[in-house]
Amino acid sequence: MNDTHIRWAHKDLLDVDQLSRRDVAILLEQASQFQEINQRPVKKVPVLRGKSVVLFFAEPSTRTKTSFDIAGKRLSADTLSLGKSESSLTKGESLKDTALTLQAMAPDVIVIRHSSSGAAQFLAERLYCGVINAGDGRHAHPTQALLDCFSLRQIWGENFAGKTVLIVGDITHSRVARSNILLLSLLGVRLRVCAPRTLLPSAIDHWPVEAYGTLNEAVRDADAVMCLRLQLERQQAGLLPDLSEYSKRFCLGLKHLELAKPGARILHPGPINRGLDLSSALADSPQSLILDQVAAGVAVRMAILFLMATRNDGGADA
Amino acid sequence: MNDTHIRWAHKDLLDVDQLSRRDVAILLEQASQFQEINQRPVKKVPVLRGKSVVLFFAEPSTRTKTSFDIAGKRLSADTLSLGKSESSLTKGESLKDTALTLQAMAPDVIVIRHSSSGAAQFLAERLYCGVINAGDGRHAHPTQALLDCFSLRQIWGENFAGKTVLIVGDITHSRVARSNILLLSLLGVRLRVCAPRTLLPSAIDHWPVEAYGTLNEAVRDADAVMCLRLQLERQQAGLLPDLSEYSKRFCLGLKHLELAKPGARILHPGPINRGLDLSSALADSPQSLILDQVAAGVAVRMAILFLMATRNDGGADA
Amino acid sequence: MNDTHIRWAHKDLLDVDQLSRRDVAILLEQASQFQEINQRPVKKVPVLRGKSVVLFFAEPSTRTKTSFDIAGKRLSADTLSLGKSESSLTKGESLKDTALTLQAMAPDVIVIRHSSSGAAQFLAERLYCGVINAGDGRHAHPTQALLDCFSLRQIWGENFAGKTVLIVGDITHSRVARSNILLLSLLGVRLRVCAPRTLLPSAIDHWPVEAYGTLNEAVRDADAVMCLRLQLERQQAGLLPDLSEYSKRFCLGLKHLELAKPGARILHPGPINRGLDLSSALADSPQSLILDQVAAGVAVRMAILFLMATRNDGGADA
Repeated sequence: MNDTHIRWAHKDLLDVDQLSRRDVAILLEQASQFQEINQRPVKKVPVLRGKSVVLFFAEPSTRTKTSFDIAGKRLSADTLSLGKSESSLTKGESLKDTALTLQAMAPDVIVIRHSSSGAAQFLAERLYCGVINAGDGRHAHPTQALLDCFSLRQIWGENFAGKTVLIVGDITHSRVARSNILLLSLLGVRLRVCAPRTLLPSAIDHWPVEAYGTLNEAVRDADAVMCLRLQLERQQAGLLPDLSEYSKRFCLGLKHLELAKPGARILHPGPINRGLDLSSALADSPQSLILDQVAAGVAVRMAILFLMATRNDGGADA
Repeated sequence: MNDTHIRWAHKDLLDVDQLSRRDVAILLEQASQFQEINQRPVKKVPVLRGKSVVLFFAEPSTRTKTSFDIAGKRLSADTLSLGKSESSLTKGESLKDTALTLQAMAPDVIVIRHSSSGAAQFLAERLYCGVINAGDGRHAHPTQALLDCFSLRQIWGENFAGKTVLIVGDITHSRVARSNILLLSLLGVRLRVCAPRTLLPSAIDHWPVEAYGTLNEAVRDADAVMCLRLQLERQQAGLLPDLSEYSKRFCLGLKHLELAKPGARILHPGPINRGLDLSSALADSPQSLILDQVAAGVAVRMAILFLMATRNDGGADA
Repeated sequence: MNDTHIRWAHKDLLDVDQLSRRDVAILLEQASQFQEINQRPVKKVPVLRGKSVVLFFAEPSTRTKTSFDIAGKRLSADTLSLGKSESSLTKGESLKDTALTLQAMAPDVIVIRHSSSGAAQFLAERLYCGVINAGDGRHAHPTQALLDCFSLRQIWGENFAGKTVLIVGDITHSRVARSNILLLSLLGVRLRVCAPRTLLPSAIDHWPVEAYGTLNEAVRDADAVMCLRLQLERQQAGLLPDLSEYSKRFCLGLKHLELAKPGARILHPGPINRGLDLSSALADSPQSLILDQVAAGVAVRMAILFLMATRNDGGADA
């Protein structure tokens, strides 16, 4: 793919805060090349032939797992899926033993999703093969932030500095919000969040964001709005009074978008609660990047798999 | 594969009624070429290398899903499986959003099985990638009808006109029966059905079939008998008095077959209820095409995947 | 791979007692070649391109299924997974009909795990394609025994004769123990077992083993100790008084190993109950072969898949 192979420094991808601006640029540029491949009739390159990628998803997931699966296959890697029910975790085996067992089969990369914050790092410290965090508890979801960034880059080019991005919804429990705030800050974006107080972390004052309680204020002059998925179980936990009340105050609609910058874009990590996270009209509007994000996800995951799985291949492309 | 690439007209395969006799001939001839490949030591051709096929089965299925999976792999396509529990349908996402998300990952074909009649068409109208209906509610199961036809073609050659085929069992709820009646009628076959009145659709008089209440009459001079799978939940629904009573009247046995044409063949879409849908002896008899149907299924699905996934490749083979 | 292709005599692998010493040598030598491939950056050879391997696991399993899956893929075979819930077994289809259906799709090898002893043999007698037993009830688990043997061979070379191996744990219910006793006996190893009386088979006197009731005696001068996984449901069945009591008497620890031969090795088929089957310190000690066993599993399964799937390819390599 590359004439001059870039040596990727990172054995693992645990969160975006390990990446420099240059790392991000390399990764997104690589993704951009793979994005082109995904638009060809023959969407496959042999760069990871003979590499094995284990998809270890201890939490259910469609889009992230399918996205990594298709990314691996388009690079000609062999992908192996393993769910919690299939893994020996259900037989009482520890995460460490499961991971050491997987590693003994000599995969090149293990992609892990887990309900415990820190699970990916725990593995990364114990395994010599590469570990990609595909979402760990409330902690981080780095490939989501990178694909969001990639989607915005297709609109904004390199001009992230000075842009304003608003994130709306359950900030407290969202690994998507956390990773995006880290990454977009790095790129010079000004960040705002908007949520009911019960869904804002208590330490929000120490985050590099401005917090708002109403959409009308928050959205003003924003260049992009990222709506999060509201987990409906938050209501049972007493953090939400009433969904229709929430919707009235925090569901992003066309009327809010009119207050944003002209041409402002909408993002959502999916799956969407239409009429709750954002209005259905907005989700399907030309300003919505939601499906671009899905396509970006495949390209970004191809890029990170490629960079990680070839970093020990001695300077030459595999 | 083909010296002269045939341009396939249909973006989707929703039911057999969209196919002309020429389409059917092209598809079955293509299947016939792939059938040969399936008998070689190396059962693989590179014609769909770099194509992605999503198998989206929202209803459980073994043979249809495995058949599509193996068909895709033998053409060198990448196949991706997605069940209902893995999809975000369980998180309340709509079928449309799930499908748009899948499409954004740039697959070439989505194969869908769904419990709602019309689900495949719903998607086909909203997606630009090809959609294959692998069974939707009571409505249609076109690849089943095509593989049944392919199995009979291996016996009859092109001579379908004037043949008589009897379909026995739960006609009302059977998408297999519906699609077969459409396809076999197109090819000039005379159709009979035989079932308890409770399992015959009320509109049966308007179908191009003769309805019978007893097997002895129905089977007379038939060239082939297709037994359907009785869904045992029909009894709970009050549509069947008693399984042993049903079996006595509608379970096809050797003695019935003696009334059919000499050399008449037996088909069943599987899985078989032995002793209920047909006798065990008949299922294992030389006249049974049941396992030929399974083999035909792989070849027919290879053919439809090939024709659909290469139709935009600009006239040249992929 | 081989200059002189060895014609493998066995259509199926049901248990190790069908293998001669020469067969075992051929298989382990082949595995040794594949083990090297697993250590390369490009871990893939095209020897089974165009071959299909069905993984039919009617009992849950991680490591065995993943191991066969990765083994098949590294040989460039297409692998297809089928669980019990996905198979029509849940619709009341018989094992025989399910297997005949799978066979009709023309796979080269079917790998089966099943809770009934004899299930693999039942299929092998009815199918013309190769059948590999990946564990059937309490009966046999031949690839586990072969991989254990391969792991020991990496330490001992060809010198198995006269070595002493102790197997500790639930001998009665263990297909791993059964297959290992058969294989290691064939290679001239002296076998011991150690377990509570309730977990020793009543016919143990007729087995080629010495039975012990205490670890201290059993372990004396052993060259290797294989700890089995204790199924916790044995306690509910009344076969075990108390897990802490069991652990005190039968959990292998460092102090026991001091009584064994210097350099004695530890094996366990996984997943480990740490502190019950063996001590955590021992599991992680340099003497432990537990992770080597996992790696050996991939190599051994590559070897058996290769030998079986190419045996009809006319003397030339595929």
